[in-house]
Amino acid sequence: MKKLMMICVSIVMLSSVKASEPIQPIVAEKSINQAQAELGKKLYFDPRLSKSGFISCYSCHNLSMGGTDNLKTSIGHNWHQGPINAPTVLNSSFNIAQFWDGRAKDLQEQAGGPIANPGEMAFTHELAVHLLGTIPAYVNEFKQAFGTEKIDIDKVTKAIAEFEKTLTTPNSRFDQWLLGNKSAISQTELEGYQLFKNSGCVACHNGPAVGANSFQKMGLVKPYQTDNQAEGRIAVTGKDSDRFVFKVPTLRNVELTYPYFHDGGAETLAEAVDIMGQLQLGRKFTATENAKIVAFLKTLTGEQPKFMLPILPPSSYHTPRPQPFK
Amino acid sequence: MKKLMMICVSIVMLSSVKASEPIQPIVAEKSINQAQAELGKKLYFDPRLSKSGFISCYSCHNLSMGGTDNLKTSIGHNWHQGPINAPTVLNSSFNIAQFWDGRAKDLQEQAGGPIANPGEMAFTHELAVHLLGTIPAYVNEFKQAFGTEKIDIDKVTKAIAEFEKTLTTPNSRFDQWLLGNKSAISQTELEGYQLFKNSGCVACHNGPAVGANSFQKMGLVKPYQTDNQAEGRIAVTGKDSDRFVFKVPTLRNVELTYPYFHDGGAETLAEAVDIMGQLQLGRKFTATENAKIVAFLKTLTGEQPKFMLPILPPSSYHTPRPQPFK
Repeated sequence: MKKLMMICVSIVMLSSVKASEPIQPIVAEKSINQAQAELGKKLYFDPRLSKSGFISCYSCHNLSMGGTDNLKTSIGHNWHQGPINAPTVLNSSFNIAQFWDGRAKDLQEQAGGPIANPGEMAFTHELAVHLLGTIPAYVNEFKQAFGTEKIDIDKVTKAIAEFEKTLTTPNSRFDQWLLGNKSAISQTELEGYQLFKNSGCVACHNGPAVGANSFQKMGLVKPYQTDNQAEGRIAVTGKDSDRFVFKVPTLRNVELTYPYFHDGGAETLAEAVDIMGQLQLGRKFTATENAKIVAFLKTLTGEQPKFMLPILPPSSYHTPRPQPFK
Repeated sequence: MKKLMMICVSIVMLSSVKASEPIQPIVAEKSINQAQAELGKKLYFDPRLSKSGFISCYSCHNLSMGGTDNLKTSIGHNWHQGPINAPTVLNSSFNIAQFWDGRAKDLQEQAGGPIANPGEMAFTHELAVHLLGTIPAYVNEFKQAFGTEKIDIDKVTKAIAEFEKTLTTPNSRFDQWLLGNKSAISQTELEGYQLFKNSGCVACHNGPAVGANSFQKMGLVKPYQTDNQAEGRIAVTGKDSDRFVFKVPTLRNVELTYPYFHDGGAETLAEAVDIMGQLQLGRKFTATENAKIVAFLKTLTGEQPKFMLPILPPSSYHTPRPQPFK
C-alpha cells in the first residue's frame, strides 16, 4: 500500500512537472527508415556531392562540434565567405521550417540547398545524381533503401533528411530534471531557469527544442546592430513586417553551438544573454542573473549522436573527378 | 593422429606461404597507449588546430575515404592549392619515413608539419598549444594521458601519432590468402599477383605495407612527365642523385586512395599500372595483364578503421576564435 502510494505520488509529480513547464524533454524520433538513414549518413559525409570534392554536409554541420562549424559564417567553395551563421543540425527535425528565414519547409527540402549553392558546395543536383549513379555500391544501397534502381535528387535529399532525423540529443540534465530527477540540476541552474521563465525568454524559447517553433523579430525593443546583410523572412514572404524576422533558434546544446545569432555576432553565451535581454525584453540582466541563466542554458546539452564514422564506397572509373581549382 | 598430421600440414603450409612471399600480412599495432590514442583521435578531428577553424587532419586524410582526400593535390587554408598528393594515413606507421620526400622521421614529427604550414592549416605550434590549454576538458585529458598538466607540441603530436598507429587495415582478402585461405582470392587475382611478382613490381612494393619501406626514383627507365614542381628527396639530402626520388607509396587500400603518384597524375589504377610498367620496368603490360594486376591490387583493401565519431570538448570563453577570413 505504501509502495503503491509512492508510485502514485511519483506519477503525479512527474506529470505535473511535464504539464506545467513551457519546455518539454527531447524525445528521440522513433519512425526512422533505417536503410535510408544509413545511406543518408554516408551522403552526409560524402564530399563528392560538392564540386571540389572537399565539402560535405559534415563540413559546416560538424557532428563532433554540436552540429555546426563554430564559425561566424561558414566557408564555402573556393573559400567563399557565407552570408549567415550555420545553424545546428542537431534536433533540426523539430524546426518549424529550415534555414534562418524558413525558406525550406522541411529537412528534405533543406538538404538540396547547399549542394547547389555556388557559394557552398557549388555542385548541381543533376551532377550529384549522375555522380552517385557511377558508384556501384551507392546504386545498390539506393535500391535497397528505396526499392528502385533509379537515383534522383528526391531520394538523395530524403536519405540525408532521414539521417538528420536521428540527430536528436535526449537526456540532457535539464530533461532529467523535467522528468522528475530533482538533483539533476544545481540550485544556481534552477534559479537560472526561473529567471529564464519569469523574464519572458520562454515566450519564444519553449517546447522540446527550446525554440525553433516560431519566427520572431530580431531587435523587438531595440534594433540589432550588425554589418550582416541578411534581412530574414521578408526574403520568403515579401512582407515588410517580416524584415529582420528570423526563425527562433533552438537552445538545445547551445553550449556547443557558438557563436550566436544569425550573424554569429555574439561569441559567448554571456554576451548572447545580455543582448537578448536588452533587445528582446528591454531588460538589463545583472552579472549574477546573467551567470545564472548561462548556467541553466548549459544544462540543455544532451547526449550527442553516437555512431561509427561511415566508410564511403570508392568512385568507379566512370565517376567524374572533383574540380577544386576550376 | 590424422588430425595431428593435418594440423602439422597446415602449419607447414602457413609458414611456407608467409616465408616465401615478398608481401606479409598487416598486423595491427599492439602497443598502443589507449589514453593518448583517444586524445589523439579528438585532436585529429579538431579543426581548431587550424587558423580558420575549418581544417583538421581529417580534412585531407579522410578516414571515410581511405585516409586521403581523393584529390590530385589538397586544399589548404584560403583554398590554397597544395603542392603534392596527400598520402594515405592508413598503415602509415609502416612508412620508412613520412611525407613523399621522407623529411619527417616518424608519425609524430609529421603531425607537426601541416598545423604550421601556411598553405595547409596555417596555424603555429605556439597558438595550437595555447588554444588547447584554454579548453578545460582537453587540459584534463592531456593530464590523464601524459601525467602532467603542461601541454606542449610534443604531447600534441605524440597523441596524434598514437591515434594514427591504430589506423591499420588488417584482414584484406590478400592477407587471408597469405595466411592460407586459398579461396580468398580468385584465379584472375592470383594471376595478377603472379604477374606483379614476376614483372618486378615487388622489387619496390614488398613487405607488410606493399611498399613504403624504401625511396626510389620516379621514372627509372623513362622519365616521368609532370607539371608538378616537387623534386623529391633531394630537398632532404641535397644530393643530385636524389632528384625525383620519392618514398615508394604503400599499395594497401590502393583501390581507395586514387588519384595516384606524388602529383596525383594517374586517375585510375589501370593508368597507374600502365605508367609504372613503362617507366619503372620498361614493360608495356597488355590490357589483359593490366586488368589482372588491377584485380590483384584490389585484394589489398583491408578492414577500414572502425570507431565512433569523436565528440570534441567545447571552447571556453578564453579560447581564441578562428580567423578564417583574416
